[in-house]
Amino acid sequence: MESDLNSFRQEKLPLLEQQMKNFLQGLDAEKSLQKSMQYSLESGGKRIRPLLMLAVCQVLKKRVDEPVFAAAGSLEFVHTYSLIHDDLPEMDNDDLRRGRPTNHKVFGQAEAVLAGDGLLTASFEWLANCQLPSELKLKLIGLLATAAGPQGMVSGQVADIEGEHKELKLAQLQLLHRRKTGALIQYACQAGGLIGDANARQMIYLTQFGQSFGLAFQINDDILDVVSTQEKLGKAVHKDQAENKNTYPGLLGLKESYSELKRVVQKAKNALEGLQKNLENGKNTELLWDFLDYFSRKGNA
Amino acid sequence: MESDLNSFRQEKLPLLEQQMKNFLQGLDAEKSLQKSMQYSLESGGKRIRPLLMLAVCQVLKKRVDEPVFAAAGSLEFVHTYSLIHDDLPEMDNDDLRRGRPTNHKVFGQAEAVLAGDGLLTASFEWLANCQLPSELKLKLIGLLATAAGPQGMVSGQVADIEGEHKELKLAQLQLLHRRKTGALIQYACQAGGLIGDANARQMIYLTQFGQSFGLAFQINDDILDVVSTQEKLGKAVHKDQAENKNTYPGLLGLKESYSELKRVVQKAKNALEGLQKNLENGKNTELLWDFLDYFSRKGNA
Repeated sequence: MESDLNSFRQEKLPLLEQQMKNFLQGLDAEKSLQKSMQYSLESGGKRIRPLLMLAVCQVLKKRVDEPVFAAAGSLEFVHTYSLIHDDLPEMDNDDLRRGRPTNHKVFGQAEAVLAGDGLLTASFEWLANCQLPSELKLKLIGLLATAAGPQGMVSGQVADIEGEHKELKLAQLQLLHRRKTGALIQYACQAGGLIGDANARQMIYLTQFGQSFGLAFQINDDILDVVSTQEKLGKAVHKDQAENKNTYPGLLGLKESYSELKRVVQKAKNALEGLQKNLENGKNTELLWDFLDYFSRKGNA
Repeated sequence: MESDLNSFRQEKLPLLEQQMKNFLQGLDAEKSLQKSMQYSLESGGKRIRPLLMLAVCQVLKKRVDEPVFAAAGSLEFVHTYSLIHDDLPEMDNDDLRRGRPTNHKVFGQAEAVLAGDGLLTASFEWLANCQLPSELKLKLIGLLATAAGPQGMVSGQVADIEGEHKELKLAQLQLLHRRKTGALIQYACQAGGLIGDANARQMIYLTQFGQSFGLAFQINDDILDVVSTQEKLGKAVHKDQAENKNTYPGLLGLKESYSELKRVVQKAKNALEGLQKNLENGKNTELLWDFLDYFSRKGNA
């Protein structure tokens, strides 16, 4: 099955990278700002969110047009901004990201704040000006802002940082994860659905899939921080415990975290089965199964 | 003449404040985040940008509907985010803003970064979901992102911070000012024009007015930092020199800065005269003259 995902990646990734680079270089911005934004964008991320959006489109439409890459790329801009700000000394204070020095380590703290601000704002600029239909663009902008803003990721970050000083209950941790990482992943699925003209029933399954996939992704990330190595992850490990972060292993223990991961992955699979039953003849969800397998399995977060 | 501006302010301001508060409180966000965003929003700013947008609408249409306040309020969100990030220790390191402790002084540095991120993102969320026509909303979102992002304000901030280590030429300082403060003020005028159904000729004059008004505003701000007092300004004075900032008085001296201010104000007046000649019978630009008089005059920035 995984060869599907690999060939999909190999086909889509170069165009996605090119489009992101083109958009950034086409901006009439200060050179140093452009450089620092580019640095973090080119830091070798797996591009999970944009590829997931493209995969959902492909599952629904079988064909992914070029304007769709603007929607995918602008999502990666938002994700990248969040990493730059997350790594800041006043936030998680990380020196290393994907095996390279973090943005503020290279460009300084002020430039890093501004690189994040720039990528976030440019994301909406890109979406607003891309070649997708107007009503679709407006829906995407509204959903993305909700997923990334105070009702989503930013609140997740606040809860994450404030949680360093208290032990959360499981429901609170789930809300934190749903906002901090879940919201953008769910947006990726919903946006793919909207672009791919999903009907109401398909959208329900896509939303459920996005929710469960996002949670599985984060539980896996929590587990990896405990069981993996810096070489494998490209970032420091055992940081959650050192920073007193609330995590699944911290709250439930490692064994129960694995069980929970399994349960959540099963929910994602159920959603995909529901989606499969609602696809037109000749279309299938295999690509999304591959995503789920690959990214919710120990060692790939 | 100024009584026009006063009665306009008294009429529009309460509704603007109420709409901003309503939107913020309607968000399903972490309470502490909501509180820190609210704190900076309620810090007693003059609301120049949103009021200017509303004034342009009124000059063109004579009637300002409620959905227009979403466009005005979302602009003030962006301005407020920029102040929060600008005041951060790694940026201008300001303890005082409008006579009150800055956001990070009250809520901590991480929360301040996130309050800024939250307001910026919520601004686009508000615009995308407000009751204005879709095509208009898309235009506003695109223009706002361009004005606030890497092609506008964020690049201005980068140039401002990097300029602390070198002396800029006048053309570079003008570009810096055009991006740092000019872009959002110009957006206020253009957005007011778009909402007020300005024709192409009116838009040209509105854009010229916004450009010159923005520059006049910033030159005046530079001058005030030299000649005013902390009590009058509600923030520290003589900071530009202490931080080695590039300013008009620093580059041209105080006397020549006053002359330059006068020249730029004249350009703004010329634009208003052009606009006046292109208004329908019975409409006039008096309100915009009042704005210009009030905000480009020593002591009111």
